[in-house]
This record gives sequence, C-alpha cells and structure tokens, in this order.
Amino acid sequence: MWPLPEGYNYPRNHWYVATWSDELNNETPLERWILGEPVALYRDEQGRPVALEGRCPHRNYPLALSPIRGDALECGYHGFTFDSTGTCIRIPSQDTIPKVCRVKSFPLVERWRFVWIWMGDPDKADEALIPDHDEIALTADGWRAEQAMTHLLKARPQLLHENLTDISHLAFLHAGTVGTEAIAAADVTITDHGPYIRGARFIPNETLTGFFSDVLDYTGPVDRYVAIDFYAPSMHVALESFRYPGTDDPIGEFRVHHVVTPATPNSINYFVAYSRTFARDSEEVTNVMNTVFAGAIDQDIVAAEAIERMILALDEPKELLVKADEHSIRARRWMERLIEAER
Amino acid sequence: MWPLPEGYNYPRNHWYVATWSDELNNETPLERWILGEPVALYRDEQGRPVALEGRCPHRNYPLALSPIRGDALECGYHGFTFDSTGTCIRIPSQDTIPKVCRVKSFPLVERWRFVWIWMGDPDKADEALIPDHDEIALTADGWRAEQAMTHLLKARPQLLHENLTDISHLAFLHAGTVGTEAIAAADVTITDHGPYIRGARFIPNETLTGFFSDVLDYTGPVDRYVAIDFYAPSMHVALESFRYPGTDDPIGEFRVHHVVTPATPNSINYFVAYSRTFARDSEEVTNVMNTVFAGAIDQDIVAAEAIERMILALDEPKELLVKADEHSIRARRWMERLIEAER
Amino acid sequence: MWPLPEGYNYPRNHWYVATWSDELNNETPLERWILGEPVALYRDEQGRPVALEGRCPHRNYPLALSPIRGDALECGYHGFTFDSTGTCIRIPSQDTIPKVCRVKSFPLVERWRFVWIWMGDPDKADEALIPDHDEIALTADGWRAEQAMTHLLKARPQLLHENLTDISHLAFLHAGTVGTEAIAAADVTITDHGPYIRGARFIPNETLTGFFSDVLDYTGPVDRYVAIDFYAPSMHVALESFRYPGTDDPIGEFRVHHVVTPATPNSINYFVAYSRTFARDSEEVTNVMNTVFAGAIDQDIVAAEAIERMILALDEPKELLVKADEHSIRARRWMERLIEAER
Repeated sequence: MWPLPEGYNYPRNHWYVATWSDELNNETPLERWILGEPVALYRDEQGRPVALEGRCPHRNYPLALSPIRGDALECGYHGFTFDSTGTCIRIPSQDTIPKVCRVKSFPLVERWRFVWIWMGDPDKADEALIPDHDEIALTADGWRAEQAMTHLLKARPQLLHENLTDISHLAFLHAGTVGTEAIAAADVTITDHGPYIRGARFIPNETLTGFFSDVLDYTGPVDRYVAIDFYAPSMHVALESFRYPGTDDPIGEFRVHHVVTPATPNSINYFVAYSRTFARDSEEVTNVMNTVFAGAIDQDIVAAEAIERMILALDEPKELLVKADEHSIRARRWMERLIEAER
Repeated sequence: MWPLPEGYNYPRNHWYVATWSDELNNETPLERWILGEPVALYRDEQGRPVALEGRCPHRNYPLALSPIRGDALECGYHGFTFDSTGTCIRIPSQDTIPKVCRVKSFPLVERWRFVWIWMGDPDKADEALIPDHDEIALTADGWRAEQAMTHLLKARPQLLHENLTDISHLAFLHAGTVGTEAIAAADVTITDHGPYIRGARFIPNETLTGFFSDVLDYTGPVDRYVAIDFYAPSMHVALESFRYPGTDDPIGEFRVHHVVTPATPNSINYFVAYSRTFARDSEEVTNVMNTVFAGAIDQDIVAAEAIERMILALDEPKELLVKADEHSIRARRWMERLIEAER
Repeated sequence: MWPLPEGYNYPRNHWYVATWSDELNNETPLERWILGEPVALYRDEQGRPVALEGRCPHRNYPLALSPIRGDALECGYHGFTFDSTGTCIRIPSQDTIPKVCRVKSFPLVERWRFVWIWMGDPDKADEALIPDHDEIALTADGWRAEQAMTHLLKARPQLLHENLTDISHLAFLHAGTVGTEAIAAADVTITDHGPYIRGARFIPNETLTGFFSDVLDYTGPVDRYVAIDFYAPSMHVALESFRYPGTDDPIGEFRVHHVVTPATPNSINYFVAYSRTFARDSEEVTNVMNTVFAGAIDQDIVAAEAIERMILALDEPKELLVKADEHSIRARRWMERLIEAER
C-alpha cells in the first residue's frame, strides 16, 4: 500500500507489541487485530500470557467474545474448546476431534510492561530480536518508565512511521508544547546502528521555556540533543537530552517509545510509553508529562487520520520529498527490504 | 455469496414474510427491502394489503416516502400515481401515460399475523406453497401464538439459516437461559418431511431448571424433545416438547418461528413469533417468554453480525464442518438447488 | 457518473460559488471540497480572498487545518509556507525551495455575497462569464436579496440539477407551502437565452393562499408566472412573478438562487439565496420566507439523498423520461457538451 509498493503491507517474521501486561487476565479475553489477523489474548491459570488466532475455524465466531475455561478458550458459539497451544480439546457435539481443527497460537514475550507477539513462522521467533529494554531505557538503572497511551488509528502504518522519522514536525504540529522552531532548522545526522537507524539533531544554547523548563525545573540555556531511533519494523524511540551549554553535564534526559503495530493495512494499534532520568519521585512531573504527551499524540493522530483521508480522496497519491525526509526514506526502504525478504 | 456459490443469493419464486399485519395501514406506507428490491407496503381503502415496487420509474424516488391516495400511491416527488396493481393512473404534467410507466405489484397473502409476499413470477404464486399455519402451530387449536420481534441484521442470510440448523449453539451462545449442555451432546436425527427438513434431538431425563421450569411451572425430570424444522427458503420452526420421563404424557410444548427474509445479499429482515400449549391465559408467562427470547435473539444477532464482519475481514472465507453441521449442510444444498432451478 | 455518461462528472473551466463572503477571514482557513479537490480559503491581510489547493504537496496534510501567517498559509505539519499565489516561500528544514514545491492558487471573484472560484485553467478565468448579478436580481435596484442556506449533500450533483429543472415537483414534494397542483399541470415553454435556458409556466387566474398570500399581503386571483433559468454549469434562478389577472401590473416578484457546486462526484455544496421586490423593509416577511424556504430545501435534500441511495442500490440505474423532463434533458445535454469540450 502506498507509499510502500502495491501489495507491500508489513513483514511478519518480527516481534510486535500486542498489548500491555496489565490488559491480560484469566477472566475475559482481549481482541486485537494484528497484521490483518484477529488475535484473542488472555492469561492461563498460571498467569502466563496466551495469544490464539481469534477466529473459530468451525463457524468464524470471534474467539475473543468467548469465555476462558481454565487454560483454554471455549468458543462462545458451539463450544469448540482450544487449549493455549491452539489444539482443539473438545467438540461438544462429537467425541472425535479432526486434526485440522485447531487455531494458531502465537509466541508471546512479556518484557517490561509490553507483551510482544510473533505473528510469523514460530520457529523463527527468537527473543533476542526484541529491542533491548535496557538500551531503550525502559528497564535501565536511573530511569523511571511510564506506560502512557493506547490508540487505534484509522491510518496506514507507514504514515505514522514517517511522522516519527521527521521530527521537524515538532516545531509546527506540536508548537507551544514539545516543539520549538529550532528543531526544524537544525541539521539532521542519520546513522545506521544495526538494530536501529538514528536521525539526530543538536541545538546548542537553546533557551528552555514552558513544558521542558517546568519538568526539568531549570531555566536558562541548554544544549539540546534530539534523536529518533527507528527499530524496524515497529518501534521508534525518541531521545531528548538536555545539557549545560558547552559541557557533557546532563540536566536531564527522557525517551518516548512509540510503538506502531499494524492492525490492518490501514489501521494501527499505537502504544506510547516514556521514561526519564529527572524528578523520578515526582508524581506531579509524571502528571504534567502525561498531559502534555497526550495532547501531542492527539495532534499526531488527527494529522495521520486527516492525511489518510486525503490520500484516499486523491485519484493518485503524491508526495514531494525534501532533505528532511532522508530518515523517513531510509526507514521506508528498510521496511521494503524486510517485506521483500519474505515474499 | 459465500457460503453459497458465487452469485447465489436467494431464490425468488417463493413466499417470504414481508411484515406483520398490524404494520400495514391506509395512512403511511412501509418500506422494506426484500431480495434486493425496495417494496412499498400499505392497505387499500378496503383494508386489503398492497405491495408495490418501491421505486418510482420516473426519477427513482422511494414510493414508500409517498402519500397514499385512496387505493393508490402518489409519488412524493412529481405526483406520478400508481394503483394497487402497479398501473400508473396519473402523470400530473401530461394527459397520456406511457405503457411502460408502471411498477411491479407483488402478490400478498395474510395468514395469521404474517403478511407473505411473492417476489418472483406472479403466475407461479400458489398460496398452497405457504407453510401450513396449523401445522406450524400458529393457528392450531390448543395453542397460543405471539408476534414477538422484528430486526434488521447486517449479515448474509445464510449465516442465520446455519445458526438455526445447528442448535448445539443453544448450549453455549444461550447458556443459562434456553440452552443446556445436554443439547450439544445429544445425537441429531435428520429427516426429510417434504416441506421441511427436521433436525431432532431427544434428551431423556433432563432436570428442568430456570426459565423452562418457571414457565412450565414444573420442577423435576423430563424427557425433552427438541427439533428444528427448516421450511426452505425462509422459515425455521423450533419445536420444544417436554414430557414426563418414559411416557408420552406432555407437560408442555412450544414453538419458535424464525423467519429469515433476505433484505439484500448481506442483510436480513428477521421476524420471530412463538406459540405454546401451556399457561395460555397467563400474561405473566408471556412476559417472561418475551423477555427471555428477546435476550436470546439479541445473542444470535450479535453472533451473526460478528461473523459477517469476520468473514469480510478474511482474504478468503473458510469454515470447518463437523458432524453437527449435517442439518445445516442439507439445508444449504436445498437452498442451492432452489436457486439453481431458477437460473 | 450516471445519468451523465461514465466518467463525466463536471466541467472545470467555469465559475462556481466556493462560499459566502462572510465565511472568509484572516484568522482561520475554511476547507471546501470543490470538483473533487480540497481548497483552503481565507483572506490576506488586506482582506482579499485567497483560495489555495488544500493539500500540502510535501506530505498531504490539509492546508485548511493550518495557521494563516500574514498573507500566507503555513502547513500545520512541517511548516512549509505558501503565499497567496501558491508559491512556497519557506521550508523550515532547508534554505533552498524546489521549484515544484507549490500549490495551485485559484482565481476568486467576490460578487454580491458570493465568492466565485475558477477551478480550471487560470488563463481562461474571465469574470465576464459570471452570471450578471443585476440580471439575476441580487444587486438590482428595487430588490432585497438574502443570503439563506449552505448544505453539504450526499448526492451526485446532476440529481439536484434535475430536481430544479422540473418544478412540477413543487406541487408534490413541496405541497402546502410553495407548490400548488396547477404548477404541475401547466404547459412548459423552454427557451434558450444564451447564458441560460429558461423553463417557464404561466398560470392565469390562480387564487393565492397560504404562504404567497401572507408574504405578498394580497388575497385574491393572480396571474402567476414561474420560471427556472439554468445557468450552466451551476446556478438555477427560480423566478416567481405575480400580477393582477389579465394585466402586466405586478403584485410582487421573487427569485430563488440555487447554487450547485460539486464537492466530489457524489456530493454537493448547495448554496441558496433569494431576493424579492415586495415588503423590502419587513424583517417579518424575511423571517417567514427564511422559514418556508428552509423547509422546502430540506425536502429537496431528503429527496436527492434518498434517490442517490436508491440509485446506488440498483444493479443498473434506470429512469423513465416524460414530457415535463424536457428542460432537465436540455440542461443535461448542455452539461455533457461542456464536459465533452474539455476532454
């Protein structure tokens, strides 16, 4: 789907965030569509997370509308029961169970508060491929991390990827809160780090105001370092570091973790977390950051959905790429290579 | 449309229920879509029901939005007037009326409170083809019949047919009210009775509880006989008979009449009636049955619409048929033969 | 799009009404879709109206969601700024501006309270092609003109054109207010006046009642002259003239100006104005006319949208044309010639 080539939607043999740990329980399954498939998520009696294909093979009833029976899901329509491996263990109307009567079970890994799911070939599900949660400062010493937001967006995933890889938009879409014009004007340095591609901006001697000044409890000039690390195919880590001008002495740092899990070719499960080094004991700072980030994310959602509608209304989608889009285009090519590799 | 073959939607030369008698009057026409066509329904001055094609041939205005003038409908846009045979009897802007200016008039038969319509070739509209209302216990002596519900469902009609022909779903979708697990486990006997195919279950020595116990005013063991009679292409009569164990002595019986009138290829006019032999003078029992059946029908609607969405979201629809689907599959083949015969 | 030939939607090299003068300001842009394109409308600092293509060429963000900066629009996403000619004057992330980075600027003319837009080749935008506002009695001496209504209709524009060119519908759709049966029965004379085609009816010796009697403050017989002047491709002027029977002495006249600006192939920006010769100082008469016309226009909208749905539901659209459709068909052929000329 444009701006990817026709028929290119998402690579499957990768970890995606399915949901948050605290959304899963042994009472009521949760339905999420992921990579175009319905998934029923719950916990077994030992508390282990389970993800089953969310469609009963018998009559297409949504398994997420079905009751949990112990470790298993019992289809709410005719009672076909699937254990946590997806094996059918009961057909109430007969004693024998055909071998083909089963649903897929998807590998899950809980890391920090994220529940990561592997929608592709289960034999390839290597946990080492999950972004390092210390490296991304969710579990690292000296950081306080917050689970922030969950949204379902009506937009193709690539629009959100390309929002995130061009943070010159902070100066405009988020003017007055997290953005200043200096960000848009700063040179961008793109570097490939293997698991991620970084787009970084350095803004020396910026005067902090408003939100940043409030939460850092600091007034005056700073050297500001802003980067976006894109971990294909689904995570962006925004990195903001403030230092005393001309020094390496930190005033404070935070990360915002944007997770883009495709629901369908043109809808997105969008999860946001963030972490910080400063005011780690302050609930007030947490409240301020929650509020400001929620406002900014709402602006991103309005933009992505408006652009989705605009693209759909055009006879033929168009765009005009400029220098600031280099990070986006490198991320786009990376996505294309990942999809291409699976065809 | 799947699960019928591509292009197979519904047979036309059959009686379908269009509406209830008490919905028709000489004041305001009623619009229903039936087999993909708009129909304007009303009564003439003698009280006879009339069904006209619901679209003015002139400019496509819905005739059901138009006023009734005596026995005729006067198009609410430019006044073209059609008598109860569909003949245009007035074009206000000219004196001559082209022969081609007419709408179809559909044969109607009122039987009990149902208004049956014939959407096919009018020459083939034989009233004898309507299910016998004594046989289905709507007008039979010793029965009290109720007009219960009208719903418009966003689902292909076949999904509702196959819901009704596999009542093992009672044990799960309707657990706690009209269903018990014994129903799903019981053997099914399929028999062809000509006008209908019956799928029957016999459950000896079941202990009545809850709803059934309440309305029958009986506590204790029963022999329960449950059947679904499918009268193709549109009616299912559910039959529930409770007897003293090991005897032919009836405790009570009821029927539920499910009418599936296709509105369009993927929407349904769903009418429900029911009748009973017991507590025929009790409004309280009627109220309890109305409430419980309304709840159960709502569950069926949620299921059918959820499955419709699931099917639409799949690249290719799938299903996995088991022994309990025999009745459904025989009904499906019957529908296919009826459609095939008209091609 | 039916009833025009496949692929025929609207001619571009013509003036269309984009909006009302009082909807434009230097504070917040207005978005309107016109001929399938998004347009961002605002005023520059000198108060001159500006219409820019409403889609940023960079990333498809809607420019009408963007702030006005002086005479320019600054894209709300990444700050690309376009002056009132559509030239990009700033890309915040770089110093050079590619020549291809620009949006279309559409010629606008304010005439009376209408803002007319030219969506086609700007070199052909000749103001003389706008209907003469004296001739249509919006700015003529002796007339009081009112800006009345704005609606967005979900219907293809041709349905509204053909509503307006067959005013026999007044007798039925608007029975009891602006229509009487005599209108439908009267002969229609079609005459081609160059800029418009007139369909005229003369009804001698009609007895005024209700609305007309109220606003004209006159009871008794009149000679009534009713005409519709279609100015292709977008304006209809309805002309109502009441005279003392058998004379040329006017009792009063009014005009209703119906403007059909296609938003997309099947949606319409519908603007209504009207003017009158009588009771020009009476706010009460204005209030009565506003109310009655609003009711009638609502009936037209319900009809057009119902017909649009009916057409979409038919396998193949149909119609049956009669003598009273001559004006509509001549208007339709005119539209086809205008579109054909641009292919």
